[in-house]
Amino acid sequence: MSEPENKIGTYRFVAEPFHVDFNGRLTMGVLGNHLLNCAGFHATDRGFGIATLNEDNYTWVLSRLAVELDEMPYQYEEFSIQTWVENVYRLFTDRNFAIINKDGKKIGYARSIWAMINLSTRKPADLLTLHGGGIVDYVCKEPCPIEKPSRIKVDADVPPAGTLEARYSDIDINGHVNSIRYIEHILDLFPIEMYQTKRIRRFEMAYVAESYYGDKLAFAMQQAGPDEYHVEVKKNDDEVVCRSKVIFV
Amino acid sequence: MSEPENKIGTYRFVAEPFHVDFNGRLTMGVLGNHLLNCAGFHATDRGFGIATLNEDNYTWVLSRLAVELDEMPYQYEEFSIQTWVENVYRLFTDRNFAIINKDGKKIGYARSIWAMINLSTRKPADLLTLHGGGIVDYVCKEPCPIEKPSRIKVDADVPPAGTLEARYSDIDINGHVNSIRYIEHILDLFPIEMYQTKRIRRFEMAYVAESYYGDKLAFAMQQAGPDEYHVEVKKNDDEVVCRSKVIFV
Repeated sequence: MSEPENKIGTYRFVAEPFHVDFNGRLTMGVLGNHLLNCAGFHATDRGFGIATLNEDNYTWVLSRLAVELDEMPYQYEEFSIQTWVENVYRLFTDRNFAIINKDGKKIGYARSIWAMINLSTRKPADLLTLHGGGIVDYVCKEPCPIEKPSRIKVDADVPPAGTLEARYSDIDINGHVNSIRYIEHILDLFPIEMYQTKRIRRFEMAYVAESYYGDKLAFAMQQAGPDEYHVEVKKNDDEVVCRSKVIFV
Repeated sequence: MSEPENKIGTYRFVAEPFHVDFNGRLTMGVLGNHLLNCAGFHATDRGFGIATLNEDNYTWVLSRLAVELDEMPYQYEEFSIQTWVENVYRLFTDRNFAIINKDGKKIGYARSIWAMINLSTRKPADLLTLHGGGIVDYVCKEPCPIEKPSRIKVDADVPPAGTLEARYSDIDINGHVNSIRYIEHILDLFPIEMYQTKRIRRFEMAYVAESYYGDKLAFAMQQAGPDEYHVEVKKNDDEVVCRSKVIFV
């Protein structure tokens, strides 16, 4: 139970042609998808996956995601993702990731923060007592040398850089705009010249509320440094849905 | 060389959470992505994949795709895709697919038509002579009991049902809007009520020309029967980029 091999899950991927951008590099949306899948595989294999939780009327909710990379896998390249649980608190757990290239070199890391909620009440559950606190057995001291998710701030008077209405392809099995679609829509705010001359060094998402089919999403973007942009997504001119930070290099 | 096992390629998948729609069923865009990947795997394993062709300055170009299904895999379900070459002509080849569910039952089929072009001249290549005509050795008589891609017609005076500008996430490594993105954009033309009460029985794409970053894409849609819709995508108010037929049931 306590050997690190069992605490860290490793999953292999290949950068598929329709998953890379015009530079031939894996897109951040697809990487995010793989990260969240790995979180699911890892949790399921250890008895605290969504399917098991749903039986007890609970589910995982992603609160924060931060990804920092030296490079993205290139088209057709194999890569792997490792994931482990760093901390378990009463209401949140920290899950970290390493992204490893075809040569076995760590090319990036990611941090995520999750809560568990009761599906009926939508209230947070106590992670330390659920399932006999079994998740705590998997806490692992593997290093993750990137900063924790940080504060993201967009001034109230910033006008939207883009707007859209949530469509069929945006919606997941829970009826919500899916977490990955926000990433794609946010990265589409930048002109292609940005991606021709720079790459994303760090990307952060803070998921605040759900949005639904037909919601009008407005994307306010504010530059916070030479290569740093903060984005706030609001639905229906009112409620904040998520915030994002994009740092180019 | 002539045994059917070597002529038919079989590839396994699982319906990932971010690859299913609000009904929990794999999206047509993701299925299309898997089909095209299988085409690539199958061709590469037999010596006529894109990487080999590129060395000789040639590449495959997808001309038509038609998919017909009894059902789509459900979230977390395993499924597999078989693919084989049905015909090779001088300028085109027909590649077919079967989609097989977790219980081994064939739940759908697909047909695709491909050309090969010279990357410098963009002119079509002779498939019967290229690489010593080796592709012909893989022609296979496996049944594919769905209709061939058919004529798609939208009247010239039909106004656009939707428009958009091609963004960063739409563009592939060749600098073109990628084949899968058109599928997603086309399916987003329909209101969610359509997918709440019906499912897609047959889906067709005819790829006519390439579009690029910044192109304004207009989607004209015309109903051609009780459950049949034809869509024509034009770029910059002028050139036809692709056409699609969607039949619900």
